[in-house]
Amino acid sequence: MRILVVNVNTTESITETIAQQARAVAAPGTEIVGLTPYFGAESVEGNFESYLAAIAVMDRVMAYDQPFDAVIQAGYGEHGREGLQELLNVPVVDITEAAASTAMFLGHAYSVVTTLDRTVPLIEDRLKLAGLYQRCASVRASGMTVLELEHNPLAAMEAIVRQAELAISEDKAEVICLGCGGMAGLDEQIRRRTGVPVVDGVTAAVTIAEALVRLGLSTSKIRTYATPRPKKVIGWPSKFGH
Amino acid sequence: MRILVVNVNTTESITETIAQQARAVAAPGTEIVGLTPYFGAESVEGNFESYLAAIAVMDRVMAYDQPFDAVIQAGYGEHGREGLQELLNVPVVDITEAAASTAMFLGHAYSVVTTLDRTVPLIEDRLKLAGLYQRCASVRASGMTVLELEHNPLAAMEAIVRQAELAISEDKAEVICLGCGGMAGLDEQIRRRTGVPVVDGVTAAVTIAEALVRLGLSTSKIRTYATPRPKKVIGWPSKFGH
Amino acid sequence: MRILVVNVNTTESITETIAQQARAVAAPGTEIVGLTPYFGAESVEGNFESYLAAIAVMDRVMAYDQPFDAVIQAGYGEHGREGLQELLNVPVVDITEAAASTAMFLGHAYSVVTTLDRTVPLIEDRLKLAGLYQRCASVRASGMTVLELEHNPLAAMEAIVRQAELAISEDKAEVICLGCGGMAGLDEQIRRRTGVPVVDGVTAAVTIAEALVRLGLSTSKIRTYATPRPKKVIGWPSKFGH
Amino acid sequence: MRILVVNVNTTESITETIAQQARAVAAPGTEIVGLTPYFGAESVEGNFESYLAAIAVMDRVMAYDQPFDAVIQAGYGEHGREGLQELLNVPVVDITEAAASTAMFLGHAYSVVTTLDRTVPLIEDRLKLAGLYQRCASVRASGMTVLELEHNPLAAMEAIVRQAELAISEDKAEVICLGCGGMAGLDEQIRRRTGVPVVDGVTAAVTIAEALVRLGLSTSKIRTYATPRPKKVIGWPSKFGH
Amino acid sequence: MRILVVNVNTTESITETIAQQARAVAAPGTEIVGLTPYFGAESVEGNFESYLAAIAVMDRVMAYDQPFDAVIQAGYGEHGREGLQELLNVPVVDITEAAASTAMFLGHAYSVVTTLDRTVPLIEDRLKLAGLYQRCASVRASGMTVLELEHNPLAAMEAIVRQAELAISEDKAEVICLGCGGMAGLDEQIRRRTGVPVVDGVTAAVTIAEALVRLGLSTSKIRTYATPRPKKVIGWPSKFGH
Amino acid sequence: MRILVVNVNTTESITETIAQQARAVAAPGTEIVGLTPYFGAESVEGNFESYLAAIAVMDRVMAYDQPFDAVIQAGYGEHGREGLQELLNVPVVDITEAAASTAMFLGHAYSVVTTLDRTVPLIEDRLKLAGLYQRCASVRASGMTVLELEHNPLAAMEAIVRQAELAISEDKAEVICLGCGGMAGLDEQIRRRTGVPVVDGVTAAVTIAEALVRLGLSTSKIRTYATPRPKKVIGWPSKFGH
Repeated sequence: MRILVVNVNTTESITETIAQQARAVAAPGTEIVGLTPYFGAESVEGNFESYLAAIAVMDRVMAYDQPFDAVIQAGYGEHGREGLQELLNVPVVDITEAAASTAMFLGHAYSVVTTLDRTVPLIEDRLKLAGLYQRCASVRASGMTVLELEHNPLAAMEAIVRQAELAISEDKAEVICLGCGGMAGLDEQIRRRTGVPVVDGVTAAVTIAEALVRLGLSTSKIRTYATPRPKKVIGWPSKFGH
Repeated sequence: MRILVVNVNTTESITETIAQQARAVAAPGTEIVGLTPYFGAESVEGNFESYLAAIAVMDRVMAYDQPFDAVIQAGYGEHGREGLQELLNVPVVDITEAAASTAMFLGHAYSVVTTLDRTVPLIEDRLKLAGLYQRCASVRASGMTVLELEHNPLAAMEAIVRQAELAISEDKAEVICLGCGGMAGLDEQIRRRTGVPVVDGVTAAVTIAEALVRLGLSTSKIRTYATPRPKKVIGWPSKFGH
Repeated sequence: MRILVVNVNTTESITETIAQQARAVAAPGTEIVGLTPYFGAESVEGNFESYLAAIAVMDRVMAYDQPFDAVIQAGYGEHGREGLQELLNVPVVDITEAAASTAMFLGHAYSVVTTLDRTVPLIEDRLKLAGLYQRCASVRASGMTVLELEHNPLAAMEAIVRQAELAISEDKAEVICLGCGGMAGLDEQIRRRTGVPVVDGVTAAVTIAEALVRLGLSTSKIRTYATPRPKKVIGWPSKFGH
Repeated sequence: MRILVVNVNTTESITETIAQQARAVAAPGTEIVGLTPYFGAESVEGNFESYLAAIAVMDRVMAYDQPFDAVIQAGYGEHGREGLQELLNVPVVDITEAAASTAMFLGHAYSVVTTLDRTVPLIEDRLKLAGLYQRCASVRASGMTVLELEHNPLAAMEAIVRQAELAISEDKAEVICLGCGGMAGLDEQIRRRTGVPVVDGVTAAVTIAEALVRLGLSTSKIRTYATPRPKKVIGWPSKFGH
Repeated sequence: MRILVVNVNTTESITETIAQQARAVAAPGTEIVGLTPYFGAESVEGNFESYLAAIAVMDRVMAYDQPFDAVIQAGYGEHGREGLQELLNVPVVDITEAAASTAMFLGHAYSVVTTLDRTVPLIEDRLKLAGLYQRCASVRASGMTVLELEHNPLAAMEAIVRQAELAISEDKAEVICLGCGGMAGLDEQIRRRTGVPVVDGVTAAVTIAEALVRLGLSTSKIRTYATPRPKKVIGWPSKFGH
Repeated sequence: MRILVVNVNTTESITETIAQQARAVAAPGTEIVGLTPYFGAESVEGNFESYLAAIAVMDRVMAYDQPFDAVIQAGYGEHGREGLQELLNVPVVDITEAAASTAMFLGHAYSVVTTLDRTVPLIEDRLKLAGLYQRCASVRASGMTVLELEHNPLAAMEAIVRQAELAISEDKAEVICLGCGGMAGLDEQIRRRTGVPVVDGVTAAVTIAEALVRLGLSTSKIRTYATPRPKKVIGWPSKFGH
């Protein structure tokens, strides 16, 4: 089976990190294809950039011209998953939801540690809409930008561990979710440092996407995610964006 | 003061209807400017179209080259208001929230009557995120498309009244919100037919936008809606869209 | 249009402060009439006093013998708005709800800074019933009494700013509501000190009352706020209270 | 021990019915004193009347010049209990809360059957504030007025049973609460007719008031229900009302 | 009337403490019978032990061969009450719910102070399911084990008082519930130390059980707690366990 | 990897059905071991039977003397998962939660169709505690007992389809979960009949258990699900039950 793992920003090296992380857990026979949007911000840390990413991810997937079995949207707390579900007939998995859903099998409450404080409300809102917020102990910001995760991994690790420890001691989290696609690969170290299960959304999403395909399940097209009605659409990027 | 009223679809005649409705309640000295996005769908009735509209509305506002004092996003249940708040320093008012907020001063519970059933979950989700859902008795679909509102106004009126009456008798609504920008102007008739206050989001939004300007209040830039950090953004439509 | 702004306590100087604040934002052509109840407490800081104010405000409004277009109940967290809505056909706006409703257009979360700690649960309960509590980050007490706001404005300002700053840093508020009718006029200074939008309930209520009148909207009389059924009422204060 | 059972309306015969019902379950040694307010409406079926009752009940209790051990406010869904708690050092029990609290020991969900439809939101709001609404399956109106309960008991019984049966079959209630002080004494018949436990708020409140006294427990005076601060109060009814 | 008070652990001395506490408040004519399960853990401080206690309590009650009028399950936060309600026709009262329900008549918010941190989520979950959590300010752990309450009462008292004081100052609790059956008898001292009402679940449960019996009320058998359908049950402990 | 799939009732044929269903989706290399408890009811349709099953499942797993990698508790809405998590270091997956968690990736809202009406509240309560209830449109009963599913599969199919259709049309479900372990294998037919995705908890649980093992994740032992403290436990069934 082929799974598209779509980055939400336009930084190719992050796409590569995410795709490698996905491949590390993919089942034999699963092909992971990493995709970078044709337009958008080099990192997504707010609503404007996230809405732009929503369209850019849809555009990139629609421009992909080979068959595929599932799509993973690899941005944490980002908009857009609902649009992809309308456009596609294969399962769509968002890493924010994949991480939370997985964490809830592992402990009574989970926390998310993300990048900048300004992204915290976006993640909280996505979890609330997804109906996965009740057992969320907290969403905490490490203060590191998405790009600093790449350029300063040691400082990022320390900042994330510090917030994870506070989530455990203050907020009573029993599981930590890594709240950024760019944190892919840090889970093992943080698990060792904190002593609790650490969930990376990308790898969680790979197992969920594979499972849905294996079970023969895909998005219900009966109401909310029905295919868009045929109508005139002007300037939708996939028509002219590249 | 100048208020931009931005349609979410690309149908000019709907922009005109909305702008006229806005002008009918604007205070003396308020100039209403109706804007139509440069790209997007001719009507917005689902997530894909709504996400596209989110970007198209931001793009259209950023392309407007005159000063303005506030922006009204005139789509019911649509995505994107948060992005506009990041990009602008003037107040941004969404008609979904304006209608609900106004209705809550008028009765113990309100209902929304909208177009197609598939848009009901979008409206519910926007109201939930906005923290305005608790006193929402129901969101009901009339079954009319956005464009049918224009082309078949009599049938639309009957379908809306029927659902409004059910909202009152079955769901215990005491106020009705018209759940589509394109329903602008129908409020008076429906009020007469149902005997309850009927709130049109566009006119409600005009009074709220004027009030915020008059009170000297605008979006808090301290956290969620801070201006986007300077970073590389590729292909943001306002650079190439027209 | 004429708007009655009714103080909830019997201190005339507070009525005057509130009325001046209201006049400062009223539209041209709006007459603001400040009213002081004929009975009740010199300040309202608890349930007993608040319930008494509920009746005293209704009594004072019913005793007013000129036409009017809307009523503002100018007490923060007080009981009684629902009773006024039953007795009147014109819109009734409570400043607690006006402030919260306005704040929600300005930021992701708001906090209220009020007077004594004992009034915090009253305000929280009113916001919960009003369906406006979900985005409330906190209600904080400055520790100043209502009368100290008048007699010691400098100390009051410091105490309010201190709690506002904590609301922003600890509770993640992005907007501050001034939680007492007697704080009217402090908003501008606190905004300068804290850097976030500050909402005064009285001025917010004036713009909302004006908007409802302008939109031709008033309380739904279909169920909860229907006019009281004709029945024998003994000793209702407006019959004998003055 | 002496328990004051205070009617919320001014109809003496209802006070008598309530007091008799209370006496029927009072423990040996408990004296039940029925009190009728000096002012207010002959029946309470809305917010105006209920706010007036709030003050009238406090007034009547403060005018009682003998010692007492607890107070029961015998109106369903009425305002005012919090004020009594501030004024008194003995326990105060509201029959709305007493009934719900008792019902929750008897079944997974309970419904309330009350008088007029317009009182339903008042009862729901009181239960929500009391934190007792989560297991409430529904509040249903029989359509009978408070006074019709007295004058047409057979019709009232039929109307109540009909709604109780719907609550059981449609709303999945397992227990029925009688939602009006004036329904005192109907519980046994309705239990026989419906086959589920039926809770009368007055008798439930008597056992709770007795229990609190026996356990040496009374209202916490540390914050919300602290005694009102000494201040000037003009025209509080207990000074001039009789 | 005879009330069975069933300990959830197998430590006889705790059963005795609980039964004495129950007798101290029981009405004249009420016989309290303390029962210890035939199997299970010497103290219950987690889910495994609590599930085992659920069955052990049912087993012990079914093995009791005299008539009885009500059952009190004297474990805080424990599983099993619903099973007892199915097996019996007399009222069943759980002390967790009895304490919370009683506390809610005494203050705006209550906290629970319990033993080990690991039991906090169990108590929170039971209160949430019971619909009694909304006014819970916090559940706090004293860090003392159930058995230390017996063996080191002075240290236990200090640890409990410390958490109660934090619940009052930090969490705004106005009432404290003692969160362990083995804390029976400490309420009076803690009340003196903290200045707020302190509710012991065992004594609260006795008054509620007596009240239900006196009111002629018992578990609704119409749905959730209907008697188990006749079917083959293998190895149910009461058949072979002793 | 070896996964134990534990039936909650003592009917061997149901264990076999469940195990076969599990094997049908297990990955190559996954061994499914079906286990039947040594004691308990032949079908679980209520709280007493469910609590007994909780202990019986723990007992059966503890008696299994080979290594294993994960455990699936194959009863819908049953108690006990938390106890297993304390006793084991490998992941534990409950089919109620597995089904809901999976359904939430497929549609905006899901419904559960189960057996008898009396089990509906148990399922609702388990979903509420699991934090997976917000997007649950309804839990509906087919009226078929667990054993009728085996003995009268055609009638069962019809009854389930009828409720699934009502869930879709009335409750706005977009996905159906089969609410009984004994419904394993019916999903494909019901999907064809209703046109929406149908989730079987057993197969969903298999993919989740495999994923957790593959990701190296297991229950957090830091707080709620810490291993039970060493203490005296009398008569725990695994010592004497067989």
